[in-house]
Amino acid sequence: MNRRWLMWAALIGGAFIASAWTAGESESLARQPAAKGSLVEFNEDGSIKQPAGFRKWVFLGAPVTPNDMNEGEASFPEFHNTYMDPESFAYVEQHGEYRDGTVIVKELTSVGSKVQPSGNGYFQGGFTGLEVSIKDGKRFAEEPGNWAYFSFGHKYPLKTGASRNKVASCNSCHDQNATNFVFSDVYPVLKDVLTKARTEQR
Amino acid sequence: MNRRWLMWAALIGGAFIASAWTAGESESLARQPAAKGSLVEFNEDGSIKQPAGFRKWVFLGAPVTPNDMNEGEASFPEFHNTYMDPESFAYVEQHGEYRDGTVIVKELTSVGSKVQPSGNGYFQGGFTGLEVSIKDGKRFAEEPGNWAYFSFGHKYPLKTGASRNKVASCNSCHDQNATNFVFSDVYPVLKDVLTKARTEQR
Repeated sequence: MNRRWLMWAALIGGAFIASAWTAGESESLARQPAAKGSLVEFNEDGSIKQPAGFRKWVFLGAPVTPNDMNEGEASFPEFHNTYMDPESFAYVEQHGEYRDGTVIVKELTSVGSKVQPSGNGYFQGGFTGLEVSIKDGKRFAEEPGNWAYFSFGHKYPLKTGASRNKVASCNSCHDQNATNFVFSDVYPVLKDVLTKARTEQR
Repeated sequence: MNRRWLMWAALIGGAFIASAWTAGESESLARQPAAKGSLVEFNEDGSIKQPAGFRKWVFLGAPVTPNDMNEGEASFPEFHNTYMDPESFAYVEQHGEYRDGTVIVKELTSVGSKVQPSGNGYFQGGFTGLEVSIKDGKRFAEEPGNWAYFSFGHKYPLKTGASRNKVASCNSCHDQNATNFVFSDVYPVLKDVLTKARTEQR
């Protein structure tokens, strides 16, 4: 049993060394270090594959726009569980801004119930949708703020690949209504580190 | 630069191996490996200090029981952002059950707004409360399921220490209404790994 643990530890330790080595190399290339490796895999046509492992990224917040509060047709039905990749989150903690390579994932879930022993409310059911936004100065040089938006759909089974949405369908709203293209006001975990980082910089 | 990175990586990798080795040793002592180190710090009187770093643990789900849907007095006002420590989550992924030492944190946030560009709904405001549940067969041998429940309050500033709640105030409801003491039905991220682990075991 000890041997199995040790093997895993050695593998993970090795991977850590390798990734730290790579990070050291790429960091010297730009003021804002880009994401190591590919957090999101791109197809040749510019569409993306579903990101993996994001449920272990840093949770930012979970708005709910229930269908029954939006005449049966919410734009983003219904809970939006929102995550940022951990390294980009660490960058926000340090610098108070979004680095090149930042990935934000919004996973949608249904409203599973409206009454539980804890009271009346909205309670998450199953997973229903997946959306991704990526900031990339090279790839999305022409997008406002260099942010691009992708949707794998709002209904299961999800699409396996997602093409970039047109500027008008996502980016223009984020540009006009959000702060630096991210709705950080409704993501308390993100808002908290932004506020702390900016306070420290003063 | 690369050399310094490598040195750090090697040091950290080495420490990881060492800690994994230690964990491996303790694992042989019990069927369910206990949490390494202290995820939550206990005071001498059995109360606990506020856990640190839980916003980077694994997010499980975020029910909302708004005051305005509960006659102004929700039991848990209002959003409950719920997390599990990463090692115990990995144990659930593998075994489909909660190991000794599992810590679940429920962080409460206010409803900050009910209208945003994404539609009508409930949107998280600031942090308002903090609750913790811990499964510990030694420390909480007499508690149903060995789960104990602690609250740092539902209003800021939070208490710096929290005593264990009486069985009747939390545990009896979890015992009667939840599955294995955890309301996994409303935590899709947890429900998903539980379902997968149990399917694989068949």
